[in-house]
Amino acid sequence: MDAKEFREFGKAAVDFVADYLENIRDYDVLPSVDPGYLLQLLPKDMPETPETWRDILSDIDRVIKPGITHWQSPHMHGYYPTSVSYPSIVGEMLASGFSIIGFSWICSPACTELEVVVMDWLAKFLKLPEHFLHATEGPGGGVIQGSASEAVLVAVLAAREQVVCRVRASHPELSESDIRGKLVAYSSDQSNSCIEKAGVLAAMPIKLLPAGEDLILRGAALRSAIEQDVTAGLIPVICIATLGTTGTCAYDDVDSLATVCEQYNVWLHVDAAYAGGAFALDECSELRRGLERVDSLNFNLHKFMLVNFDCSAMWLRDANKVVDSFNVDRIYLKHKYEGQTQIPDFRHWQIPLGRRFRALKVWITFRTLGAEGLRAHVRKHIELAKKFEVFVLADARFELVAPRALGLVCFRAKGENEITAQLLQRLMERKKIYMVKAEHRGQLFLRFAVCGMDPKPSDIEFAWTEIGTQLTALLAEQEHLAAVGKAGDVTELTQQFGLQLTNGTNEKSQ
Amino acid sequence: MDAKEFREFGKAAVDFVADYLENIRDYDVLPSVDPGYLLQLLPKDMPETPETWRDILSDIDRVIKPGITHWQSPHMHGYYPTSVSYPSIVGEMLASGFSIIGFSWICSPACTELEVVVMDWLAKFLKLPEHFLHATEGPGGGVIQGSASEAVLVAVLAAREQVVCRVRASHPELSESDIRGKLVAYSSDQSNSCIEKAGVLAAMPIKLLPAGEDLILRGAALRSAIEQDVTAGLIPVICIATLGTTGTCAYDDVDSLATVCEQYNVWLHVDAAYAGGAFALDECSELRRGLERVDSLNFNLHKFMLVNFDCSAMWLRDANKVVDSFNVDRIYLKHKYEGQTQIPDFRHWQIPLGRRFRALKVWITFRTLGAEGLRAHVRKHIELAKKFEVFVLADARFELVAPRALGLVCFRAKGENEITAQLLQRLMERKKIYMVKAEHRGQLFLRFAVCGMDPKPSDIEFAWTEIGTQLTALLAEQEHLAAVGKAGDVTELTQQFGLQLTNGTNEKSQ
Repeated sequence: MDAKEFREFGKAAVDFVADYLENIRDYDVLPSVDPGYLLQLLPKDMPETPETWRDILSDIDRVIKPGITHWQSPHMHGYYPTSVSYPSIVGEMLASGFSIIGFSWICSPACTELEVVVMDWLAKFLKLPEHFLHATEGPGGGVIQGSASEAVLVAVLAAREQVVCRVRASHPELSESDIRGKLVAYSSDQSNSCIEKAGVLAAMPIKLLPAGEDLILRGAALRSAIEQDVTAGLIPVICIATLGTTGTCAYDDVDSLATVCEQYNVWLHVDAAYAGGAFALDECSELRRGLERVDSLNFNLHKFMLVNFDCSAMWLRDANKVVDSFNVDRIYLKHKYEGQTQIPDFRHWQIPLGRRFRALKVWITFRTLGAEGLRAHVRKHIELAKKFEVFVLADARFELVAPRALGLVCFRAKGENEITAQLLQRLMERKKIYMVKAEHRGQLFLRFAVCGMDPKPSDIEFAWTEIGTQLTALLAEQEHLAAVGKAGDVTELTQQFGLQLTNGTNEKSQ
Repeated sequence: MDAKEFREFGKAAVDFVADYLENIRDYDVLPSVDPGYLLQLLPKDMPETPETWRDILSDIDRVIKPGITHWQSPHMHGYYPTSVSYPSIVGEMLASGFSIIGFSWICSPACTELEVVVMDWLAKFLKLPEHFLHATEGPGGGVIQGSASEAVLVAVLAAREQVVCRVRASHPELSESDIRGKLVAYSSDQSNSCIEKAGVLAAMPIKLLPAGEDLILRGAALRSAIEQDVTAGLIPVICIATLGTTGTCAYDDVDSLATVCEQYNVWLHVDAAYAGGAFALDECSELRRGLERVDSLNFNLHKFMLVNFDCSAMWLRDANKVVDSFNVDRIYLKHKYEGQTQIPDFRHWQIPLGRRFRALKVWITFRTLGAEGLRAHVRKHIELAKKFEVFVLADARFELVAPRALGLVCFRAKGENEITAQLLQRLMERKKIYMVKAEHRGQLFLRFAVCGMDPKPSDIEFAWTEIGTQLTALLAEQEHLAAVGKAGDVTELTQQFGLQLTNGTNEKSQ
């Protein structure tokens, strides 16, 4: 393909994307395909000779689009939002056009420096503590990681290595493997599965402490666990708090956790993958309480900042703790300016060596929207969730299971879990809206997250109508069955109504 | 920004990229900026109000482009190639347009299934053993990881967990930390730094065994190390062999390593990040020797397959070994079809939870080029390197330090290392071509890698003329100094000639 053809293909693709996103409400949010659909449609071998871009683009329409779950649809309410925006799409394309690998400053100064700039912009926008800024004197700063999972893993591994070094120095009688065998970390049982996975990967147990009735982890629970472990000879390494848990968007009590962490010299990381966006709002300033005491923090730009995945911001109070833990450079591999300036070589701040030019899409998106545009976007999510909450509260058949938090409403049909489960199955079968379920203390509930690139009040009304209508239908069926003396027999009920109620789609909340 | 503006911005950006890549030879491959250049050019805060796309695009030209190291330039000869192609750029944009997160099948069936398809296409194209195909009965298959670093880390961590499980079962008297403290892994001292880093992250020492005179790691060296370690009570876990080492593109002897690994029940991983592309060529079939005996394998598509970073193919003989090691799903988070079909949930095959729709750019690129186009691209790199090799051999002032391998030629100016070092410094100061240096057994040498999106014979002539001319000038200066009785005093020499010879740019080979 030459440049001339690329201009044609690229512009056709721009129109394809614009058409797709403009008309995204036309599609059912969930696709109507069975596992293996695409394997049957595509050839078993790569074509030997070139095919034309027109054929390929038409195949994307024909075979790919029907297999897409439309995350940018405003009828997507599963997991948490994964946003994109038009400027971010262009930014991603321009970064591919340059196709540089920014593992050190010399590999493209603009890549490293733009990341320094946008991470400082973002830290100020979110009103984070000054020591997280590159521009502030000291070893702190921000870096773009691929995902929240990676940011958490970086914190866990760096904290682990710091403790091993420290204990080796203070207890020379202990072997390294003795020390490693005593390490322990903490998080809440409401935290994302990536935190448990980080423990597996780090070969260090992360204890998932029971959150309170209100699903919040507090210092008292952490203190009790640490005291017990220290008494048993274990060595506490890190606590991962969450601001905006996966299930209900609960906020751990960072301040009281920090008090315990400071006392026991434990690294405090905050996973604010979702809720971090609200730091920018004055009306949410309470969320930032205690952040000046944390060692590291991560926030996903695709959740609230309209920058497409992957793009996970991470700030470190002392980046040297990561660099010292991860740096394996041979001495002859350093570049002319390395260590001589304040410009970081970000490869030492992350797991992989290679890194994409992700700062470009961030920069383009922030400039296109401006701070006021970004704040308006977060507020829109909150307002739309409030609208949904009003619907729930006004319908006596439903109940909230947790306070609405930012753009998330957790609710259920009153009564037995089975009603909520069946309601979700119906909704999934109809594919008009997508939610996932979660469970807490035996109560099954549905998570309604405001998602999509550009959700509107009418989309919330659409979702509520769909939910209400389906509950009405479900209850009518049950009443009918009760009337004919078969109430409670779900299997017969579904057969009678010709419904295909399968096991449902109970996906992992991200 | 609305769809209308996006159509304008997107199409202007397509033209921007096409113009950039068509005229890439006009730029010095290395930028002429000093550290901090961009920090001084950009505002300290995010703009409060939106800016126009025209201003932003013009800024990319004004402030970003001057800070780019032009990896797609055919005058780039550093590290290894990082390719892009026009169809891959479009694929990346389309994937951003969908902006889905493919962590499970239901999250977008097309994302998972297209990855299954293209990984099988690629495995067949590269003539890999059948058990690496998804389509073959059994637990093997391919997955797209972000980078070679991640692929290696996945192999290292999975092998580690497998061994811990196995030894705990066979030696119940040992504690888990006892076992972990005895684990050990192996690679060559020529392997990429990401392998040493994987050992640090995994908290498991990876011994970098001395490669032979020919820079190849063979079974005998591995056997000797393992025997010694087993005698000392250690537990060997994994050996990472390299096909195409970072320094000289040497090929470890997979067959003899496999014999030792089989005997000691050690996982054998092959890092073929660069050389893997040559598996496709009949004339390079020797490279595939022993691959039927390895447990896992990685290959970077951005190195030879014209798919832009990030895109690292990884194949597993038994993916269950990774899934079993990494799976932390709560039981209620599984989806309707999970485990019921042959379609994998790739989140269990990797470190992070989230995953981009990378298969799309792979599919579009493969179809646009066809198998014949991909093979032609690899052959072109080889032919161009041969052309360069001829130049080196024909100039008595230079010598090869290793046999040319694929698209890499390792050479040096005869005599003292200082001549080669000064030559590279000159070249870096002039910024016309970019090479990095390496060292082996005290000999400094230059790595000339064929790179860029579309290198041509004239680009090789350009590079050789630049190298030859600069060596001539350097030697002339030295002769002049010798004539005036000051030979050997480099400082005075450079002052006399007004040259700014700095410490040079001796970057990490990727």
